[in-house]
Amino acid sequence: MSALPPSSEQAALDPGTWSAPVVGVLGGLGPAATAVFLDVLVRATSAPTDQDHLDVIVSQHSSTPDRTAAILDPTAPDPGPVIARDARVLERIGAEILVLPCNTAHHFVRAVQEALSDRVRFLSIVEHTSATAAHRAGAERPVAVFATEGNMRAGVYRDALERIGQPSWEPPRALQESINTLIYDQVKAGAPVDRDLFDRCIDEAIDAGAGVVVLGCTELSVIFDQHGFRGDERIVDSLTELALATVTAAGKDISPAFRR
Amino acid sequence: MSALPPSSEQAALDPGTWSAPVVGVLGGLGPAATAVFLDVLVRATSAPTDQDHLDVIVSQHSSTPDRTAAILDPTAPDPGPVIARDARVLERIGAEILVLPCNTAHHFVRAVQEALSDRVRFLSIVEHTSATAAHRAGAERPVAVFATEGNMRAGVYRDALERIGQPSWEPPRALQESINTLIYDQVKAGAPVDRDLFDRCIDEAIDAGAGVVVLGCTELSVIFDQHGFRGDERIVDSLTELALATVTAAGKDISPAFRR
Repeated sequence: MSALPPSSEQAALDPGTWSAPVVGVLGGLGPAATAVFLDVLVRATSAPTDQDHLDVIVSQHSSTPDRTAAILDPTAPDPGPVIARDARVLERIGAEILVLPCNTAHHFVRAVQEALSDRVRFLSIVEHTSATAAHRAGAERPVAVFATEGNMRAGVYRDALERIGQPSWEPPRALQESINTLIYDQVKAGAPVDRDLFDRCIDEAIDAGAGVVVLGCTELSVIFDQHGFRGDERIVDSLTELALATVTAAGKDISPAFRR
Repeated sequence: MSALPPSSEQAALDPGTWSAPVVGVLGGLGPAATAVFLDVLVRATSAPTDQDHLDVIVSQHSSTPDRTAAILDPTAPDPGPVIARDARVLERIGAEILVLPCNTAHHFVRAVQEALSDRVRFLSIVEHTSATAAHRAGAERPVAVFATEGNMRAGVYRDALERIGQPSWEPPRALQESINTLIYDQVKAGAPVDRDLFDRCIDEAIDAGAGVVVLGCTELSVIFDQHGFRGDERIVDSLTELALATVTAAGKDISPAFRR
């Protein structure tokens, strides 16, 4: 391999050894959620050997400017062009399916989609999660949305649910503060998670009349995955929905543990 | 972003927005272990916010030919050139530190290192793990090596330990069969893990006189991480050792939970 002069090589995955379609993951938003996404993607794929799993390229771009900060403060650094540039790089390397396992970042998704050619299929975590949540909640009851301040302010889920005719429910101030604590002070900070606080937040939304609670922030997905909430009928987890959509779009079967 | 004509762009990470040094992960060997590696890398980094974490690019090349098969059968497909080619791609994209979270693949590591320029620092999971294991076992007692058949046959750890003057201990046949079951029939197959079998395997090696047991296969690292063995003094986990070496080489501090 060392005999190849650098100039003769493309910085692209070798199509002779990589299995199509290669999945590109725009990661690092945040870093812990991306690791869990990759893990769920593996566990959700029906694959008896290593070689049956998906081929994936992950840009764990942790230093991407904060998404909520950019939504709340117009003078803060804009993550949109950064994510769009990374998307272009993943396409040029060889990704044909692209996912962004961060709900808040979907506020900037138009810039990402415009950066891509028609050769790439972009799967929206927000659209896939909204569809499942609306189906599970039914037309009578609203879908509660647990997400970052930035996501709520931008109405990422409210708008997506509205587009499919589903009412949404927004946490009152005190509940949103608890959600912020779970996301920023615990998961993103690498601190211990208050499992009971998370459980009480879910209860409060259901007691208020919500049909289901969407975990519309992948940091909350980390709690869902690692603290025993998988299978909880009150919850539709966005990271899981994106993983299932990815496995299916890439032509693989869902593993028995994730089938429904 | 869409205004940029494709031909004017390099398929390289934007050095203006990616934080140096970018870590490249040669992943997918196997896929579950790579997801755990990424998770441990995040948890082992002292970082109060997303932006304080490492920037990483992961090639989750699940379809890479089986490493053990290639060692045991000279007519099986050779993973060496495939991994070396991926290493070149990660370098050209912008990685400056490169890691391969698969012990068995280190049999093919010369091809990988020869494919890289002097600009890239390659961290060897085998060398870092052997150094920690020798230190922990002391000069009097051998280091037990739990690994794949291919790894054992190639003597990947035996040779690395020998180079630093440390005796190694190889599991007898029945114990190796149990290790094979844990690696292939359970973790790689996505089947439930027999935690007690794993525990008994560790005990058997310690009872036979080993100072510590090296988990020299990242599938065993998945059991270590996900089934409550972290902190077990009998064990030196290769995936953890590589994550700690990566965090340090990239100039970050180790998080309190992983300090020692």
